[in-house]
Amino acid sequence: MTPRTSPLRVGLAGVTGYAGFEAWRLLQTHPHFEVVRLAAGRGAGSTLADSWPALGPAGSMPIGKLTIDFARGLDVLVLALPHGLSAPYMASLKAEGILDTLRVLDLGGDFRLQNTMTYAEAYGARHPCPEILEQAVYGLTEFHRSAIATAPLVANPGCYPTATALGARILLAAGCGGPVHASCVSGVSGAGRKPGSRTLYCEVQDSVVPYGVGGTHRHVPEMEQELCSPVIFTPHLIPAIRGMLATVTMAAPSGLTLEQLQAAGQELYADEPLVMVRDVPPATRDVRGTGLSHIHLCLDPVRHVAQAFVAIDNLGKGAAGQGLQNLNVMFGFPETLGIPTIPLLP
Amino acid sequence: MTPRTSPLRVGLAGVTGYAGFEAWRLLQTHPHFEVVRLAAGRGAGSTLADSWPALGPAGSMPIGKLTIDFARGLDVLVLALPHGLSAPYMASLKAEGILDTLRVLDLGGDFRLQNTMTYAEAYGARHPCPEILEQAVYGLTEFHRSAIATAPLVANPGCYPTATALGARILLAAGCGGPVHASCVSGVSGAGRKPGSRTLYCEVQDSVVPYGVGGTHRHVPEMEQELCSPVIFTPHLIPAIRGMLATVTMAAPSGLTLEQLQAAGQELYADEPLVMVRDVPPATRDVRGTGLSHIHLCLDPVRHVAQAFVAIDNLGKGAAGQGLQNLNVMFGFPETLGIPTIPLLP
Amino acid sequence: MTPRTSPLRVGLAGVTGYAGFEAWRLLQTHPHFEVVRLAAGRGAGSTLADSWPALGPAGSMPIGKLTIDFARGLDVLVLALPHGLSAPYMASLKAEGILDTLRVLDLGGDFRLQNTMTYAEAYGARHPCPEILEQAVYGLTEFHRSAIATAPLVANPGCYPTATALGARILLAAGCGGPVHASCVSGVSGAGRKPGSRTLYCEVQDSVVPYGVGGTHRHVPEMEQELCSPVIFTPHLIPAIRGMLATVTMAAPSGLTLEQLQAAGQELYADEPLVMVRDVPPATRDVRGTGLSHIHLCLDPVRHVAQAFVAIDNLGKGAAGQGLQNLNVMFGFPETLGIPTIPLLP
Amino acid sequence: MTPRTSPLRVGLAGVTGYAGFEAWRLLQTHPHFEVVRLAAGRGAGSTLADSWPALGPAGSMPIGKLTIDFARGLDVLVLALPHGLSAPYMASLKAEGILDTLRVLDLGGDFRLQNTMTYAEAYGARHPCPEILEQAVYGLTEFHRSAIATAPLVANPGCYPTATALGARILLAAGCGGPVHASCVSGVSGAGRKPGSRTLYCEVQDSVVPYGVGGTHRHVPEMEQELCSPVIFTPHLIPAIRGMLATVTMAAPSGLTLEQLQAAGQELYADEPLVMVRDVPPATRDVRGTGLSHIHLCLDPVRHVAQAFVAIDNLGKGAAGQGLQNLNVMFGFPETLGIPTIPLLP
Repeated sequence: MTPRTSPLRVGLAGVTGYAGFEAWRLLQTHPHFEVVRLAAGRGAGSTLADSWPALGPAGSMPIGKLTIDFARGLDVLVLALPHGLSAPYMASLKAEGILDTLRVLDLGGDFRLQNTMTYAEAYGARHPCPEILEQAVYGLTEFHRSAIATAPLVANPGCYPTATALGARILLAAGCGGPVHASCVSGVSGAGRKPGSRTLYCEVQDSVVPYGVGGTHRHVPEMEQELCSPVIFTPHLIPAIRGMLATVTMAAPSGLTLEQLQAAGQELYADEPLVMVRDVPPATRDVRGTGLSHIHLCLDPVRHVAQAFVAIDNLGKGAAGQGLQNLNVMFGFPETLGIPTIPLLP
Repeated sequence: MTPRTSPLRVGLAGVTGYAGFEAWRLLQTHPHFEVVRLAAGRGAGSTLADSWPALGPAGSMPIGKLTIDFARGLDVLVLALPHGLSAPYMASLKAEGILDTLRVLDLGGDFRLQNTMTYAEAYGARHPCPEILEQAVYGLTEFHRSAIATAPLVANPGCYPTATALGARILLAAGCGGPVHASCVSGVSGAGRKPGSRTLYCEVQDSVVPYGVGGTHRHVPEMEQELCSPVIFTPHLIPAIRGMLATVTMAAPSGLTLEQLQAAGQELYADEPLVMVRDVPPATRDVRGTGLSHIHLCLDPVRHVAQAFVAIDNLGKGAAGQGLQNLNVMFGFPETLGIPTIPLLP
Repeated sequence: MTPRTSPLRVGLAGVTGYAGFEAWRLLQTHPHFEVVRLAAGRGAGSTLADSWPALGPAGSMPIGKLTIDFARGLDVLVLALPHGLSAPYMASLKAEGILDTLRVLDLGGDFRLQNTMTYAEAYGARHPCPEILEQAVYGLTEFHRSAIATAPLVANPGCYPTATALGARILLAAGCGGPVHASCVSGVSGAGRKPGSRTLYCEVQDSVVPYGVGGTHRHVPEMEQELCSPVIFTPHLIPAIRGMLATVTMAAPSGLTLEQLQAAGQELYADEPLVMVRDVPPATRDVRGTGLSHIHLCLDPVRHVAQAFVAIDNLGKGAAGQGLQNLNVMFGFPETLGIPTIPLLP
Repeated sequence: MTPRTSPLRVGLAGVTGYAGFEAWRLLQTHPHFEVVRLAAGRGAGSTLADSWPALGPAGSMPIGKLTIDFARGLDVLVLALPHGLSAPYMASLKAEGILDTLRVLDLGGDFRLQNTMTYAEAYGARHPCPEILEQAVYGLTEFHRSAIATAPLVANPGCYPTATALGARILLAAGCGGPVHASCVSGVSGAGRKPGSRTLYCEVQDSVVPYGVGGTHRHVPEMEQELCSPVIFTPHLIPAIRGMLATVTMAAPSGLTLEQLQAAGQELYADEPLVMVRDVPPATRDVRGTGLSHIHLCLDPVRHVAQAFVAIDNLGKGAAGQGLQNLNVMFGFPETLGIPTIPLLP
């Protein structure tokens, strides 16, 4: 890494949403990135503080429209858009030749599925720019670090696939087989900031509900692409702002011991700065506001299953935190630079 | 049912806890039961209103100790005690000959496991009165109705086994096989009212945590006894006061259709007054304060699994609500008498 | 009260909102009222269960439009509409001569302010039917019982005015003077069910915010009309579904003792079946799901102020619970009939 | 400020509580302070991670007892103890001559009340070391900055007095008179981490309750000392982890305009880096995790009152955040160094 004299110029689109704002928040304290331009769909024409009054004068930067010109002159483009918007925008940037000098982090779903047929099935439409898709690298940092380092476009993983894959990888490494059972819960911020009756306080509080059941959630193909195993995935919405827990279960091979399982976890993650394999089951509060993944492993020797419990902050490691981790990798900075590792407790 | 001129005399022990109070609450509006005597461990010597100031003058009944005399002259004894306390108390009642004329509903765990060896494993001690255990009937009302009707002692099921068994029964009836995966979440009231750091507001709110993992939870043998299948059970604590959701997953037999699965659900529960099989996944808020079970079924034809999602109120169908359902069955009253079926929404 | 052979026929408009549904919930168990017809704005054309899936088959009643015909043949019309909709509807009913045989309970704000100039100021428009307004009785049951008994139209009070007036009445009776300071907090259900960014889970949870400050809230003139004193009113939104607390403070007259203050409370409310003056400050949880008001009184002899703390369920005594109390008074039924008095605890 | 080669050595006592941990959290990223030693009451003998499992290996520092030796060789002592423990400990340090070379920040209440008679009344005991009390400076940074800079001992203000005084100061500066009405709400973390039935999830959630009413709360004399006015203070507990809101009301002088009121706010705080006077009422979420104070002012010209709404994080500006602000002032560092100013949103 060459010492830099001036920070990299970042354009951030989608800053009025939760994931986009978390990206903005994290980038504020980073020494080598500077957000110089903001865009948003509905927020265009206002300032950051109009959407986030908490910021006051610190939110004076205007929010513009996501035009072609928005991307000109940037070093980095960060997209935090509803799915289906990134791909056509990228296509238009490519048509203008802007992509040649720009590196892109997409927090949305448009470039995560490498098989265009799978994409078409999951999103109900042909991918608008398969030639860009080919260049995208799936940004699960711990497993694609070297490809991320040089990728022009990093497709940041979904929150559920991140948590599930981090856990299932250990079980697979320990020789577990059969389908991956991933029973997951998510805080409400994962559903975004757009008002809807499903995310009203009085509909969410003191309740839990499964959704996207029966293998229909768009994160399923993403998980199966990454794990090369069938994934039986059930997401649930719980009354929490942030936080995601994946309870990952697989059939344990005969004779597998807890020590062997834990050794598999250590082998994968002992050197990872943002993954902690721990002795007691993690609560999502333990990673609130951070970019960490906390994992606990257990074995039921009677019923022959192994389990990994993975806690992340859905906006942290599940979105913008991993996004910044990827940006650090892309530009050769220390991987944890600017990523909080001490949770907001209590 | 013979018309009664005076209500049955109920003694309720454990009324200072959440499940005990829920039993008291439900019994207040029942035309044929009258709570005439209260007991509690730590609350003895005070009044009901000392523990529940909300009641004011309506809580003037004194709370006594759980002595032998407490049970004399009662028609019904309801026990809502921490596990390990019911069995020795029952043994002493039997020694005094009081059990001959008394019918008992135990909301705790002491008489749920019919195999004394399983009990010893789960609770770490020999069962103190196996001869009483032999007479106990497991109170999952929908499946043991006729035995409950004449039982001297009904062991009210645990909340997790209730939710899990109600769902798994459908899957089993539809021909599903393999182990039962039961990934469950519970509101905090299930952990009881005793102060502890695990249930403080600041430790629970905005978080979720798995616990009792690896097949170690005491509800596992209870589920396996009822379902005659291995159960891979993972409980999670979520920030909700009431509410329990069981996500039950099993391997689907080849060729099973969603229609067949739903038909199996209808066949089991169409005539059940407190079970509703519904078209969309249930939220626990939909059953808050009631004795209902809401169930949704789905099939993943690609990954060959069937799922049942079961929502109950852990204090309702998961404890006192099912308790009252059982009392109604025991005494020949209409089964839903006094059991709320309209939830407190929002 | 003459024994009735068939229940009174109720039409309920606005059942897709929180207050309207609470009215429906309470009326389900009432022996003398039967909801025979439903209407709603956005929900018209669907069934009750479409809006409240929890109900299942119990929600099969269709929801119609609020036409003139909706009100024909009813004994009672209950309106739970956004403000500004009741008055024109009532005017059209009057024009058709339907009001002559119909008694009306309006849970909204259109008929609460008896002075049309005050109304015009608060709601920014002339009252559309002052001649109907003249016949309306303000439905704070404890203080207008006899007028309510014969009123053709009862304007059910707002939640904040209910809580504030119940407390301030004691302070006034004890001789307190000066302005009434009413610092109040409300659960989110008071803001209604219409999706908006202000009531999203992630915007409300773990936070509190004042709103409608500076004497601008529409409940201020309602309070001042009822109390004949200036009211300094500050509402706050807290992360709770239900619940309202009014902290009412006034200057105490020289020499006032706590005993005298409490005696004033007893004198006003000792015979009231739904008001409880209690020795410790009330939590809103203590009245959740009920039609009760819990009040605690205190005196600061050093700073010469008296305070009343009033807890109600904003949907109970603050809306539909008081509504049913008024219906009972209007039709000569026992005043508490069908009104829950045991809270959903925990 | 002289450039330092090595950080100042900090000993932190009370790190197993919420305020103590917040102090630890904030000090971790500070360039000039290093926590070298930890102590706690119940946690002594364990490690930081035993109390805060989230920390994993980062929590390996052992927690010792709060002995005399604990304080030897430190540059800074930070006390986050239950009230009544700091004063005798300080007396013993003085007796050993250790205080001569040590500067102390006390987050507790022992040194906040400068009048020993007021102390005796509020805490029910004589102050154990009035001679140390004389040297203590009340740490409301914005108003006692120069005294704090040289103080041997800074008594960090209580959370309620901080929020109330920051708002009341504006009203007083604008010429408002009469008593200060301070109606305040606090998140549950303010009640500490010690298990008790009052702070259990199921007792706090979906509810609000006043407490310490009638002028009996220990923060009243602290407020009155700082404001030299009678303060009518009512605290309420709401279901939030963090967050405190003070609604401060005073009689407005005749003719006061909103512009004049706002000008008074600007004059006091325009140059303050951690106070923001804003145009819309603040939500406590807007300052979550920060050391900021957000203030909104309003005037009711009809009822002649002025109000200040002050939102702080009770663990931030209300405890450890202001503590670090004071440490920065004490040692001549930039006042906001290490203090978060971007909230954790959502």
